[in-house]
Amino acid sequence: MEFNFTEHQHVRYNPLKGEWILVSPHRLKRPWSGQVESTHEDPIPPFDPSNPLCPGVKRPNGEINAQYDSTFVFENDFPALLPDIPEASNASQTNEELFKFEPARGTCRVMCFHPRSDLTVPLMSIEEIKAIIHEWIKQGVELGDKYDWVQIFENKGAIMGCSNPHPHCQIWASSFMPNEPRIKDLYQREYYETHSRPLLLDYVNAELKKQERIVVQNSHWIVVVPWWATWPFETLLVPLRHVIRMCDLTSEEIDSLAEIMKRLTIKYDNLFRTSFPYSMGWHGAPTGRKAHSNNQHWQLHAMYYPPLLRSSTVKKFMVGYEMLGQAQRDLTAEQAAHKLVSQPEVHYKADEN
Amino acid sequence: MEFNFTEHQHVRYNPLKGEWILVSPHRLKRPWSGQVESTHEDPIPPFDPSNPLCPGVKRPNGEINAQYDSTFVFENDFPALLPDIPEASNASQTNEELFKFEPARGTCRVMCFHPRSDLTVPLMSIEEIKAIIHEWIKQGVELGDKYDWVQIFENKGAIMGCSNPHPHCQIWASSFMPNEPRIKDLYQREYYETHSRPLLLDYVNAELKKQERIVVQNSHWIVVVPWWATWPFETLLVPLRHVIRMCDLTSEEIDSLAEIMKRLTIKYDNLFRTSFPYSMGWHGAPTGRKAHSNNQHWQLHAMYYPPLLRSSTVKKFMVGYEMLGQAQRDLTAEQAAHKLVSQPEVHYKADEN
Ligand SMILES: O=P(O)(O)O[C@H]1O[C@H](CO)[C@@H](O)[C@H](O)[C@H]1O
Ligand SMILES: O=P(O)(O)O[C@H]1O[C@H](CO)[C@@H](O)[C@H](O)[C@H]1O
Repeated sequence: MEFNFTEHQHVRYNPLKGEWILVSPHRLKRPWSGQVESTHEDPIPPFDPSNPLCPGVKRPNGEINAQYDSTFVFENDFPALLPDIPEASNASQTNEELFKFEPARGTCRVMCFHPRSDLTVPLMSIEEIKAIIHEWIKQGVELGDKYDWVQIFENKGAIMGCSNPHPHCQIWASSFMPNEPRIKDLYQREYYETHSRPLLLDYVNAELKKQERIVVQNSHWIVVVPWWATWPFETLLVPLRHVIRMCDLTSEEIDSLAEIMKRLTIKYDNLFRTSFPYSMGWHGAPTGRKAHSNNQHWQLHAMYYPPLLRSSTVKKFMVGYEMLGQAQRDLTAEQAAHKLVSQPEVHYKADEN
Repeated sequence: MEFNFTEHQHVRYNPLKGEWILVSPHRLKRPWSGQVESTHEDPIPPFDPSNPLCPGVKRPNGEINAQYDSTFVFENDFPALLPDIPEASNASQTNEELFKFEPARGTCRVMCFHPRSDLTVPLMSIEEIKAIIHEWIKQGVELGDKYDWVQIFENKGAIMGCSNPHPHCQIWASSFMPNEPRIKDLYQREYYETHSRPLLLDYVNAELKKQERIVVQNSHWIVVVPWWATWPFETLLVPLRHVIRMCDLTSEEIDSLAEIMKRLTIKYDNLFRTSFPYSMGWHGAPTGRKAHSNNQHWQLHAMYYPPLLRSSTVKKFMVGYEMLGQAQRDLTAEQAAHKLVSQPEVHYKADEN
């Protein structure tokens, strides 16, 4: 018998992070009798005066939201990062080798995508999605002026710790480079030094030739289930041209991005006929003090990390072995891509709207 | 104002993994209105003929469990790792730089801790816990003969993907060194080369002096909330002597380990008056082909990664920022240690038994 990716366990390498992942396709046959998630399919009202993300509503801290009709950004009322903290000078806090720390500065913003609470990206118009992208760019430029890293991310769904159904994302900007982009910076730089081409651009071109993991594609963007995908239906969204930051996108690329985000999220929703939960976010070249270094090794990209495995209620648990050993997945990246490709491009709720 | 660890956000360094973690103690004030976990406090019968982990029961694959009266080990019926897979030889599967893979070999075992389904470690006798440790050692030696890495881990609680309340752990042995121990091997080796002492032993000695993060301690072991803890109530269990693998423990150290495991898990259960969920597991020097290299930089240790944050139903979500940026925590390691220390050493259910 020959070795076969869809039959035989193997480890795959993630060249962006220098990590491996264990793929055990034969394990999909395992029955599941553990915890299932509840599906909150209660209808969400378009406006709810007690929802602090709605237009014109008073937030718990007393501030009143603008009567916004597109996107709306405000400072997080319970931020993990604050712009000002005192210098660490006390002698008792000297940095020992095994007890190293650094004070951190930053800011946390909440960005509402749309005035209506009952809309998600796949149900919005292209124009509405374009407004989100334009706001992302504006925020990235504004915060990137001051901070070395601006992390845009969306937690979608209660299962992803999202406590409010109103469509929104968060933006956490920091004086430090967080682990994930720091490692990717390293591996992309190393590749660039050897090949004089960005790693992710070479990767995208190879995927275009192989045609095995592409989920959606248009004239400026591609979405693949990456070779090294960790989450069952993880995807990677990358421009076809070398673009280091979101603010460098052309207006055609922005139109095209809105279109591909809608197509991808429709497929996601259709897969298990549910408002598909995920965490998604953007990585591009660093900013702040790092903006003027050479960042040509970077390629802008978004990642979608959805937790569901088998249905709208059974997720992949990243626990014991995954926490202590390494990430493990049951279906191959190719199988996941195939399932997503075969989803219709029309949203399963399209008739209702 | 002076910089203060319990007031001001900062990043802390994990010298075992070369990673940072964001600590935002002021964020504990945030109210929580998101997903809560259900607490399955249905009484668990000591024996259930339909539970495939009970003694004498027929498993779905037709095998019948031994009438065991202590621990019991069998091969996982749906293993993520199998001992034999064909060689990868086809030309189409040549390793390209951005599509690297390796075939993986291994084995997955399930180890029942006790014949009764309704007992957990904190409710067992010291003798019963010692039986678990002896079985861990036996399995480690047996599998370590053949495999480079033997990962012992316990997923406890439905929230940790554990589908069976019967007390048990898993043992996954592999021909490859998984990411987590591979990185720890690197950082421990580097430290040893500079200091000629094991990193974790230096760390333990420093913690003994500082007395700020110790949860429980006895003549041979210490449990701390490590300086770099990621999960809210994460702990690290380390022998006070230099021990590279579990099979090198003396019989006094084994007795002592049983005692400290009981004390720690009683405190965990008492914290939120619930059977405290976690993933825990052991790391020590590698085995198999790697057994005969110099492994003096290693120090045996166990980690407990519990997901709960505020109560028996509110967990810490490691989502958006954590997945895309870096881990973030709300209470400091010192605050968590303090909360655990102040728990009684008698189990809250002690009266019922
Ligand atoms: O084998 P089990 O207990 O059914 O499965 C559980 O633990 C495994 C090892 O951590 C994980 O891969 C699974 O996602 C989890 O559900
Ligand atoms: O700020 P939120 O949305 O309340 O909080 C959510 O996202 C944060 C950023 O990923 C996480 O740190 C929290 O654990 C999660 O509950």
